[in-house]
Amino acid sequence: MPAQRRIDLVLESVKRLQRIGATANLLNLLQKQRPADLAQIFSEISEKDRRDAFTLLVDRYSRLAMEALSELGPEEGASLIADRSVEEAVRLLEELPSDDAAALIDHLPGTLSSQVLDYLKHKDVGGVQELLEYAEQTAGRIMNPNVFALSEDLTAGEAIAELQKNKDVEMVFYLYAVDARRHLVGVVSLRRLLLVSPETPLKRIMTTDMLSMRVDADQEEVAQVVASYNLLAMPVVDEEHKLVGVITVDDVIDVIKDEATEDIYRLAGVAGDEHVFTPPREALRKRLPWLAINLGTAVLAASVVSLFQDTIKEVVALAIFMPVVAGMGGNAATQTLTVTVRGIALGELTWGNSRKALVKEVLVGLGNGLILGFIAAGVAWVMEGDPVLGLILGLALVLNMVVAATAGTLIPIVLRALKVDPALASSVFITTLTDVFGFLVFLGLGAAFLDYLRVAV
Amino acid sequence: MPAQRRIDLVLESVKRLQRIGATANLLNLLQKQRPADLAQIFSEISEKDRRDAFTLLVDRYSRLAMEALSELGPEEGASLIADRSVEEAVRLLEELPSDDAAALIDHLPGTLSSQVLDYLKHKDVGGVQELLEYAEQTAGRIMNPNVFALSEDLTAGEAIAELQKNKDVEMVFYLYAVDARRHLVGVVSLRRLLLVSPETPLKRIMTTDMLSMRVDADQEEVAQVVASYNLLAMPVVDEEHKLVGVITVDDVIDVIKDEATEDIYRLAGVAGDEHVFTPPREALRKRLPWLAINLGTAVLAASVVSLFQDTIKEVVALAIFMPVVAGMGGNAATQTLTVTVRGIALGELTWGNSRKALVKEVLVGLGNGLILGFIAAGVAWVMEGDPVLGLILGLALVLNMVVAATAGTLIPIVLRALKVDPALASSVFITTLTDVFGFLVFLGLGAAFLDYLRVAV
Repeated sequence: MPAQRRIDLVLESVKRLQRIGATANLLNLLQKQRPADLAQIFSEISEKDRRDAFTLLVDRYSRLAMEALSELGPEEGASLIADRSVEEAVRLLEELPSDDAAALIDHLPGTLSSQVLDYLKHKDVGGVQELLEYAEQTAGRIMNPNVFALSEDLTAGEAIAELQKNKDVEMVFYLYAVDARRHLVGVVSLRRLLLVSPETPLKRIMTTDMLSMRVDADQEEVAQVVASYNLLAMPVVDEEHKLVGVITVDDVIDVIKDEATEDIYRLAGVAGDEHVFTPPREALRKRLPWLAINLGTAVLAASVVSLFQDTIKEVVALAIFMPVVAGMGGNAATQTLTVTVRGIALGELTWGNSRKALVKEVLVGLGNGLILGFIAAGVAWVMEGDPVLGLILGLALVLNMVVAATAGTLIPIVLRALKVDPALASSVFITTLTDVFGFLVFLGLGAAFLDYLRVAV
Repeated sequence: MPAQRRIDLVLESVKRLQRIGATANLLNLLQKQRPADLAQIFSEISEKDRRDAFTLLVDRYSRLAMEALSELGPEEGASLIADRSVEEAVRLLEELPSDDAAALIDHLPGTLSSQVLDYLKHKDVGGVQELLEYAEQTAGRIMNPNVFALSEDLTAGEAIAELQKNKDVEMVFYLYAVDARRHLVGVVSLRRLLLVSPETPLKRIMTTDMLSMRVDADQEEVAQVVASYNLLAMPVVDEEHKLVGVITVDDVIDVIKDEATEDIYRLAGVAGDEHVFTPPREALRKRLPWLAINLGTAVLAASVVSLFQDTIKEVVALAIFMPVVAGMGGNAATQTLTVTVRGIALGELTWGNSRKALVKEVLVGLGNGLILGFIAAGVAWVMEGDPVLGLILGLALVLNMVVAATAGTLIPIVLRALKVDPALASSVFITTLTDVFGFLVFLGLGAAFLDYLRVAV
């Protein structure tokens, strides 16, 4: 049965059992699910039901409940334990790997969050509070500090024995070898360990030419490296090259998804942390500044139009075709901008080859502008019976599309060089430019050739 | 040294060595690089230099050269071997895992592609041509058919011995157990194998409750499952549940990136397979249809405006504020649309909870509309000295933003229910709707209250 259909069926049963209050059956059903499935089920029931189901599960199966809560995302997850006492919250958080616990603690209400951190510091539980000391979106923040490291002086057999002693270290497929002062010196894959005799020293089979990331590296860089070298895990080191953690490929997948979401959102002027079910009040507050900026830019475009009100009064047809010039410029700019921003994000477009990209985009803009300008000119001629109007429309369209292509390429590239996220050059800014420029050229040409235009009667 | 800086230095050296024609040094430098680094270097030098460097490398280090070419992407990669003879192309393609070879063959020029396939069929080389028989974007197309499977009747020791005999199977971390007719019956992690005594039968340590994907499953579904269960690999089975391949997490990462690119592109009306350096002629051809549709919709908006040309002639201020109504509606719609499409792609928004999403978006649209409509009304009053104009603008803005929110949520949800990609409800369509509706309401109200508006003199 496809995974999705199975979950839908479980979801139906969960709803039914909650409705009739059959808690024993409900608990039995929930505890059989995988954490990710539970998270999906939790996300599709009402907040009250979710809280009830979580409370029921966490009493008996605290690890599973916490894993599900972690999969639910830090925001929603944290809200489910926000009303617990400090001791309880700590006990539950200790069920999770430090990186997941840290993400949740970060989203707990202020007081509880700092109480939990104090408590952990007191108990001297390693990991969590150190993680939260690293800047957001860095390797340090997403790594797991419980990395399995072995002395480089062991043999393969001793390494396997060590592994057998540490059964609950997560996802071990590479073993990292360190020297006496915990400097990272090599890596051995589990598979290689299996293929040699037990007496073989690790030093002889480990790879020393390996990649590692600094703890302060940007998480996006980590993701790019892991993805492009097809790695399963990446060791993280501090400034002295001491091993401090490991980032596994599942965390990298989350980063790739989050960064893609962020790019998509920024292009549309949406805050990176908004999602479908962000409460309306919060979503409103997050989108308002962006729309307010846009209102400002729209008023700017309106004032350009107002410069030409006498011309429009004489030739109303100009007002009719204004949306065509603006719309075509805006859409061409959005296409160029999207390809450029994505090219930068995927690492294909660099400062070095940006001239090539600009030439391409200008050629595409000019070509499409000529073809569509020609058609638009014909349409305007037919609709208004005025060839000069058509000519002006066509010309404005070509010019606006070339400007759109130039701005759509250059603005993100320049932002990137200035270390600003290129996706911030969102459609809103670029389309303002194409609106303003389009109106200026179209209405300006109209004013200049007013004597040749058919004046409205 | 950060990975990126190292590559930049190598790139500089490559350029210098190519300029002075020091081929021996160049070859020596190239053969030391990792495939992904070579791919990046290839992508940043001119086409001629790339061809020269590849030719130099492939003679002596054909596996490395082909791996680099594969990382470069199927399109560019295929172009580097497009001028080879069939025999040579086949010899080179055999250096790659079948799934990568299949992707390249798919992008070779038509004749060469079919000749290569014929040749492979003749030689009875398994894998590649079968892969190409699966539909695009399915599990079958991206899986590796050389999956390492063991009889369920073996012991742990025998399994390790089998593994030692097959040293070149890629990325083995799970071993799949099959019955006599190759039905998938269980999975054992390499780690588990290490932790038990050699006599232990696989049957006792394997997990039988595991996930697998049908060969015809959509690659996006595979990616969602692998990502949400944090898997490293996913076995692929045919309709009889026989094991036919395996999809590894690195392939899944490529799918996630490609699908995110596709979503970003579709929202902007760009073809999914375009990238920064698609040749201008091809990019032009790919974007033209979309822009042509947009020209059509812009003309539609223009004809709405033309219905009100008499009104505009009397109150030119209406023409001035048209871009404000259209622009605000368009941007609000894009925000809603983006959040909705991404929510669907990430699996957060389903048919079941879509009402909740609609209510949220309408509330956000109404709230932002009221705030911004009020401000816009004030601006128009001040700019044109006409309170009635302000009132009409504010009202039109509120209505248009509510319509934007409704359409931006409903259209992708309905498309999804109709099994059409929701990202196709791109900004172009939604903004046409907000343009047309915005002009209708704003100019319509203007016509209705013409007697109360300050008529231009």
